[in-house]
Amino acid sequence: MAKEKKLVEAITSMDVDFAQWYTDIVKKAELMDYSSIRGCMIFKPAGYALWENIRNELDRRFKETGVENVYMPMFIPESLLEVEKDHVEGFAPEVAWVTHGGMNELQERICVRPTSETLFCDFYKNDIHSYRDLPKLYNQWCSVVRWEKETRPFLRSREFLWQEGHTAHATAEEAEERTIQMLNLYADFVEDFLAIPVIRGQKTEKEKFAGAEATYTIEALMHDGKALQSGTSHNFGDGFAKAFGIQYTDKDNKLQYVHQTSWGMTTRLIGALIMVHGDNSGLVLPPAVAPTQVVIIPIQQRKEGVLEKAENVRDRLKNVCRVKLDDSDKSPGWKFSEQEMRGFPLRIELGPRDIENNQCVVVRRDTSEKMTLSLDELDEKIPKLLEQIQKDMYARAKIHLNTHIHDAHNFEEFCNVLETQTGFIRGMWCGDQACEDKIKEETSATSRCMPFNDQEQISDVCVCCGKPAKKLVYWGRAY
Amino acid sequence: MAKEKKLVEAITSMDVDFAQWYTDIVKKAELMDYSSIRGCMIFKPAGYALWENIRNELDRRFKETGVENVYMPMFIPESLLEVEKDHVEGFAPEVAWVTHGGMNELQERICVRPTSETLFCDFYKNDIHSYRDLPKLYNQWCSVVRWEKETRPFLRSREFLWQEGHTAHATAEEAEERTIQMLNLYADFVEDFLAIPVIRGQKTEKEKFAGAEATYTIEALMHDGKALQSGTSHNFGDGFAKAFGIQYTDKDNKLQYVHQTSWGMTTRLIGALIMVHGDNSGLVLPPAVAPTQVVIIPIQQRKEGVLEKAENVRDRLKNVCRVKLDDSDKSPGWKFSEQEMRGFPLRIELGPRDIENNQCVVVRRDTSEKMTLSLDELDEKIPKLLEQIQKDMYARAKIHLNTHIHDAHNFEEFCNVLETQTGFIRGMWCGDQACEDKIKEETSATSRCMPFNDQEQISDVCVCCGKPAKKLVYWGRAY
Repeated sequence: MAKEKKLVEAITSMDVDFAQWYTDIVKKAELMDYSSIRGCMIFKPAGYALWENIRNELDRRFKETGVENVYMPMFIPESLLEVEKDHVEGFAPEVAWVTHGGMNELQERICVRPTSETLFCDFYKNDIHSYRDLPKLYNQWCSVVRWEKETRPFLRSREFLWQEGHTAHATAEEAEERTIQMLNLYADFVEDFLAIPVIRGQKTEKEKFAGAEATYTIEALMHDGKALQSGTSHNFGDGFAKAFGIQYTDKDNKLQYVHQTSWGMTTRLIGALIMVHGDNSGLVLPPAVAPTQVVIIPIQQRKEGVLEKAENVRDRLKNVCRVKLDDSDKSPGWKFSEQEMRGFPLRIELGPRDIENNQCVVVRRDTSEKMTLSLDELDEKIPKLLEQIQKDMYARAKIHLNTHIHDAHNFEEFCNVLETQTGFIRGMWCGDQACEDKIKEETSATSRCMPFNDQEQISDVCVCCGKPAKKLVYWGRAY
Repeated sequence: MAKEKKLVEAITSMDVDFAQWYTDIVKKAELMDYSSIRGCMIFKPAGYALWENIRNELDRRFKETGVENVYMPMFIPESLLEVEKDHVEGFAPEVAWVTHGGMNELQERICVRPTSETLFCDFYKNDIHSYRDLPKLYNQWCSVVRWEKETRPFLRSREFLWQEGHTAHATAEEAEERTIQMLNLYADFVEDFLAIPVIRGQKTEKEKFAGAEATYTIEALMHDGKALQSGTSHNFGDGFAKAFGIQYTDKDNKLQYVHQTSWGMTTRLIGALIMVHGDNSGLVLPPAVAPTQVVIIPIQQRKEGVLEKAENVRDRLKNVCRVKLDDSDKSPGWKFSEQEMRGFPLRIELGPRDIENNQCVVVRRDTSEKMTLSLDELDEKIPKLLEQIQKDMYARAKIHLNTHIHDAHNFEEFCNVLETQTGFIRGMWCGDQACEDKIKEETSATSRCMPFNDQEQISDVCVCCGKPAKKLVYWGRAY
């Protein structure tokens, strides 16, 4: 009873307090719970099932491009972390250090991986000999640890789940091609599967990954107008290869350094799902990623024949979607609220009168639209409805994105837009980090990316300093 | 070229040096590599793919019984590990301790999970309120750390991959039922999927899990006659519930303690696959778990039409099995050795003359049997052959097990069997731990289990002390 009550309590309206609305949803949709380690979270079944679906689909797409899965140890010796200078500077301040194994102090302290470039390099150094061993297209699914001070469920936690791809190539061109290929794979995945439109682009020098030559990113826009970096792909050139000594013999029997990439996506995608699609009744899940796509809720389920018919409908629908029958002894009203809170894309209401008329009521979670369908046509109509919902959710998110991109031509306009609007600001940039720093300091907006597909010059001077500028940048406040 | 050469070098014969044979296989079949952290290993693609198949099949079977996946943090505060007395005594000596986060010393040191009973208990304490919240049937896939001194690839390493199920129930009976259900699920999985017969039984008090009331186990027999504990299932009764205060309100509104279980399987199953099925040419994989079930090796592949036909056969077979075409520029001889080393269940040899006759040569990895099959019947015959291989591999392993179980009626016989034979020894036991201790000290054999299905009394006195005994025990040297 206590559990039912919690679910239908009103959650904070997102217009009143977006942060509290978010926290309410992660708790009340039972996605996560807090643990006894500050900053580490517990993935409850509903949250982990989302990650499983994300993982399975991404993994399938990776493998189609020739990627193989491996597993590296979770520990990195301090001396190994220190081999590449930029990398250690970027990560050492936020790692967890193991100093004792059992009863003994370790001779060298080891950290829990914050990311595994150094481990892959150490491995590739011994495993790559000839051009025949290239490319190496490895990925691993694991958790990593970064000792952050401020944490938020799914968006930033001290331990999070992710995948990290690490590839090694014979040439710089091949490495760049793979970096872009994976970024596009990420973008397509997020758009198709999570129904979230993204901006694809390159990070500035200031915002790129510690040790990378170039970092590419996909940036999504949350309902509150803040950006969320949703996946990144890095080209390392031969920097790590030189630091670690990863060489191969080419066809002319000459020693060459490999060129490397890495790319990752994390459980913060679940945060994106909530903040792009959620509403004031709870989670709204795109059908492709929803662990339960359809829930059948019997009405007057104790009346003869109702449960039997509901089971019959479930068994038929099992072949065409992920369906669940809620035959618990809660009232239909509770069950409706629960479906809304948990974001199941469709619910089917089925009572004695419906059965008499060989029909049922189907309700869309995303639009609240109700329709009456013949039981005979369900097998055909439900999959079509799910497809339609997926498309509509993407279209709505795309409109939200498009209507939240504003142009600014000078610093005053920039500040004005930030005060009066939410969303991305497009503004030209001279390329000087001082301007990026100033914008961040004075407005808390950061450069999100220099977009791939939007190279129009909205002005020819820097939005900050007014000097000549050729690069278009998407700026914004971000998670 | 270097890589090819390694593969066909003779591996140490298992009859000469079983341990070296094992190490040769894990390296040369490219299942794993050593890492720069002593005792931690790297899962290479061929090794990780085995784990993926094991995981996917086990996960499917878990979910059929109502189990849901979750993910708990990898860290346990020292104070939490200490709540249950037996448990902390069992694990504290072999955990890795984190003492620093970033630049700061932690107020309380935390360990990397060696197992997660304490975390699940801490969670259940807050998450379980009423009988309506029960049972909880949770599982997680993760890695755990135990700071072992002696390690061996897959069998014992400082970090290993596993699943750990943790359930909470209203009654003692339900908990016991789930404990046995999961042990049987494990046994069926290992027998059906890995083609490894096992002995199912209960551990003695001395050998049970730290904090459990009862531990059940499946024990497999390796080719060298040593036992391998391959999966365990524990009934905790209400011990942890009392230590952690996990209570629920029953239907009469009374507070009751929950009853809990846990059960786990690890990557050591890969070690079992090697040591039960492997031979002096390398790995031999049962088709059900093999990432590649069939490899097509073209002969004279540069001749017109050969590769084309091979691709055609692959594309057809893709629908009925996991098939790969090896069209690399290595010689067919190298490819045959590689197929043998990596343990792919079937290879198809296809050359110009075969194509002329609309046939191919099919070779079984497990028996080396060669047969000529019409290309037209492949789609039908290959799946049947794979099924047959799975059955035959199980049958051979079962004969090996049955012929390596010896009875001993007194201590002299016991020692004599150990000296002259390998395998399990069945001997009666009085129930006194002193006898277990003596046997272990003097012979290095340990009690593996008290079997479920083999209750015949082979004698009425203890094999060690000669006092009255009612319990039959399987004894053996073990990994």
